[in-house]
Amino acid sequence: MLAFRHHVFVCTNRKPDDDGCCAARGSEEVLKTLRAEIAARKLQGEIHVTACGSLGTCGHGPNLVVYPDGTWYSGVSVKDVPELIEKHLLEGKVVDRLAWLDRDHLRETIAENRAKSQAKKQG
Amino acid sequence: MLAFRHHVFVCTNRKPDDDGCCAARGSEEVLKTLRAEIAARKLQGEIHVTACGSLGTCGHGPNLVVYPDGTWYSGVSVKDVPELIEKHLLEGKVVDRLAWLDRDHLRETIAENRAKSQAKKQG
Repeated sequence: MLAFRHHVFVCTNRKPDDDGCCAARGSEEVLKTLRAEIAARKLQGEIHVTACGSLGTCGHGPNLVVYPDGTWYSGVSVKDVPELIEKHLLEGKVVDRLAWLDRDHLRETIAENRAKSQAKKQG
Repeated sequence: MLAFRHHVFVCTNRKPDDDGCCAARGSEEVLKTLRAEIAARKLQGEIHVTACGSLGTCGHGPNLVVYPDGTWYSGVSVKDVPELIEKHLLEGKVVDRLAWLDRDHLRETIAENRAKSQAKKQG
């Protein structure tokens, strides 16, 4: 029962004193551009865009994930937005050069990031 | 290429002076409980949980969405978390009493919320 063809979550997490977080790498501008382009193309009824917290691929951002397919993208810049819309969101084809194509590598990266973050919290 | 069986996004949006926003309705506690229960059940490798901004069903929260199926839930409380994990995240069955079962109603609600939010920004 999908309400939208695609739902894009863009990480806008800001970590104090961390220049590797998505916000420090320009994710808010990516989100703003994505929303503006989708509105300009009158695609808001088909493509939903939501800001989100850490996706677990910290240090590789700006990160975003596209559902229902669950494609993770990293290192996304404002200039990549039109290609992501045209290729992925409209044609349904992954933009390989920005995507995590190896699922196991993605899962390991997220697990390592979680362990690092938990170790930091504990002390 | 799904990296996780389920990816849950919990809205933790906080709107100043708005007691209808998800944060004011207890969504941070829902998120914390969900994360703790998933960790306790050692499900972190299968179920990914991320905080997010407005999902567009403001005033009905705490709201969350589960992918890849794209099921929207509203009015979720801490006591609903075990049922959501067991029924939806493990058995793959929607918890009807908390879900938006009518896709068109969900889409209309989100579109109205967007229009209201844009009017507020402009005025």
